Amino acid sequence: VAGRARARRTRTYAQSGVDRGAVGTALRALLANVHPLVPPEHGVPVDLPGHYAGLVRIGRETIAITTDTVGTKVQLAERLGRWEEVGEDMVAVNVNDLAAVGARPAGFVDTIVCARPDAARFRAIGRGLHAGLTKAACALLGGETAVQGELIHGIDLGGTAIGFFPNGRAPVTGARIRPGDRLIGIPSSGPHANGYTLLRRVVDEANVDLRRPRPGGSVPVGRELLAPTRIYSEWADDLASDAGVHGYAHLSGGGLRNLVRLHPAVRFTVDRWPTVPALFDWIAATGGIAEAEMFQTFNMGVGFVIVADAARAGTILRRLASIGAKDAVEIGRIDAGRGVVVPDRGLRYSGYA
Amino acid sequence: VAGRARARRTRTYAQSGVDRGAVGTALRALLANVHPLVPPEHGVPVDLPGHYAGLVRIGRETIAITTDTVGTKVQLAERLGRWEEVGEDMVAVNVNDLAAVGARPAGFVDTIVCARPDAARFRAIGRGLHAGLTKAACALLGGETAVQGELIHGIDLGGTAIGFFPNGRAPVTGARIRPGDRLIGIPSSGPHANGYTLLRRVVDEANVDLRRPRPGGSVPVGRELLAPTRIYSEWADDLASDAGVHGYAHLSGGGLRNLVRLHPAVRFTVDRWPTVPALFDWIAATGGIAEAEMFQTFNMGVGFVIVADAARAGTILRRLASIGAKDAVEIGRIDAGRGVVVPDRGLRYSGYA
Repeated sequence: VAGRARARRTRTYAQSGVDRGAVGTALRALLANVHPLVPPEHGVPVDLPGHYAGLVRIGRETIAITTDTVGTKVQLAERLGRWEEVGEDMVAVNVNDLAAVGARPAGFVDTIVCARPDAARFRAIGRGLHAGLTKAACALLGGETAVQGELIHGIDLGGTAIGFFPNGRAPVTGARIRPGDRLIGIPSSGPHANGYTLLRRVVDEANVDLRRPRPGGSVPVGRELLAPTRIYSEWADDLASDAGVHGYAHLSGGGLRNLVRLHPAVRFTVDRWPTVPALFDWIAATGGIAEAEMFQTFNMGVGFVIVADAARAGTILRRLASIGAKDAVEIGRIDAGRGVVVPDRGLRYSGYA
Repeated sequence: VAGRARARRTRTYAQSGVDRGAVGTALRALLANVHPLVPPEHGVPVDLPGHYAGLVRIGRETIAITTDTVGTKVQLAERLGRWEEVGEDMVAVNVNDLAAVGARPAGFVDTIVCARPDAARFRAIGRGLHAGLTKAACALLGGETAVQGELIHGIDLGGTAIGFFPNGRAPVTGARIRPGDRLIGIPSSGPHANGYTLLRRVVDEANVDLRRPRPGGSVPVGRELLAPTRIYSEWADDLASDAGVHGYAHLSGGGLRNLVRLHPAVRFTVDRWPTVPALFDWIAATGGIAEAEMFQTFNMGVGFVIVADAARAGTILRRLASIGAKDAVEIGRIDAGRGVVVPDRGLRYSGYA
């Protein structure tokens, strides 16, 4: 349990841009003494180190659980006075992690910590929650709103999602990934909810007016940056019982490095990355950020990756098109080796953290 | 869903002492537009309005989920520089809500939002998590630590717990409560995690030195106030398949008013309340707080209530004694009528909120 929890936490820090050393030290301290003895009749955790969700066998079902917050993207919402997008993100960041283990979403609880309850803001957040829950086909089972006026200025948005594996289908873990497999990418809708600490620094240092379009853009750049996280759970669920699906990756904090979480002993060769959306090029140019940093901080246009048996990749792409993900494309393959490489950009990542 | 979520949220506000009107308005706004259509193959929510946990039927199991934070008690931990107790509370506030529907804990994910990660503090929180998870026999399945330096000063501690109903046993809902039933109370370990906004005001206005014992006390009063929440889940789980158990109540925010959540159309007559612990008398005297307010803010010495068939109450008390809750006592009975009454104190509460 300690290993799994530590691995999952690291992602959060990559995402928030804080000192990974200090955070790693604190998390090791947190987990050093957490090793409760739990009798099997209370459920049996399924060991899946470093993966996107925790799994526990409960009676005749295996339940997946994941908890995450929208993070510092909320501060962009605050600046723009727009809350619907981050309301949707509360659901998206969690159900996409369920999707990455092939779990079908079944329930969500939201967590709001705020200085004071504001009806207009809550109404907009609710509209976003509804949009996210509808796309994920996930029920709202409860929630917690903590008013902590002395602790917080503004608002923190997060939640927890649970999912399951219908009809006894197996979790999608990446264990069956092997050289020759193909990588299929499904595009993102923007930076999703990752990289916003860096983004804000870029925007502030360049005195960007968030209410005007960037060069070449047609809507205010603040709106572009705030776009809600695309939700992949429907497609991941649909394909999870296909034996040709060997692994799923949600490209959240850590960008391309997320691929390494699926298998430690193969190489993810990303040689057919689609054209990077202009928004990310603008971020890189405005902030003077190197490509290697961009690809390990942002999703760069692809939010979810399916590792598929080569013989099934075409069928899977056609299936994706028929169920609504027409823009899914092949982006690379699995080779012998380790880590992630992007040959035509000269990028190489050896690990996740 | 909306009704359930709203009812559950109300408790949080009773607990944090903020303006219930403004909070109620904001929550109605949040939930007004949240009504996703969820196909039954994604799980079927079990309607249990106003209760302690959300339930969803997933495949062949029913899963209970509850999310809660430690709330403003964390600020007392900050003052005293002690973190183990509130670490244990993170688990306790959640598994006690699972206990109230008769669910057996199976997994927990923690959520920490902090300005900066501090290894010593995280280590102490981890020791508390371990203690809580051990007492609840609950695995840690993951967690999220969000570093939000610009949003928060200090730290917010919470989590989400899931539980289940082994061997198809039914949830404990209160629906079978009827006049003649007995109320059995299990004592609390202190104020648990409720009433701390009021408590802090009392302590500040009276210039209480938290490092000295109160009159009649033997340990620093800050330590007394910080005692971790007692965990009731083992006992509630043990008794949940006893047909003589008709209802469970976790006396959290709202104090005695929580009983009303179990059944709207019976009267909870509390005529044998045990001696109120001296700590609560000291709080009332120091703050000049009326008894009616004390009993709807604090647990006043009883943290968990079992509503039992009269013919089974003695057996249930003996069972509790044999499994570790030797201090459980009969505290009252169910009568015809409505609400909660404490005859010898002249108290009457008609509803929960």
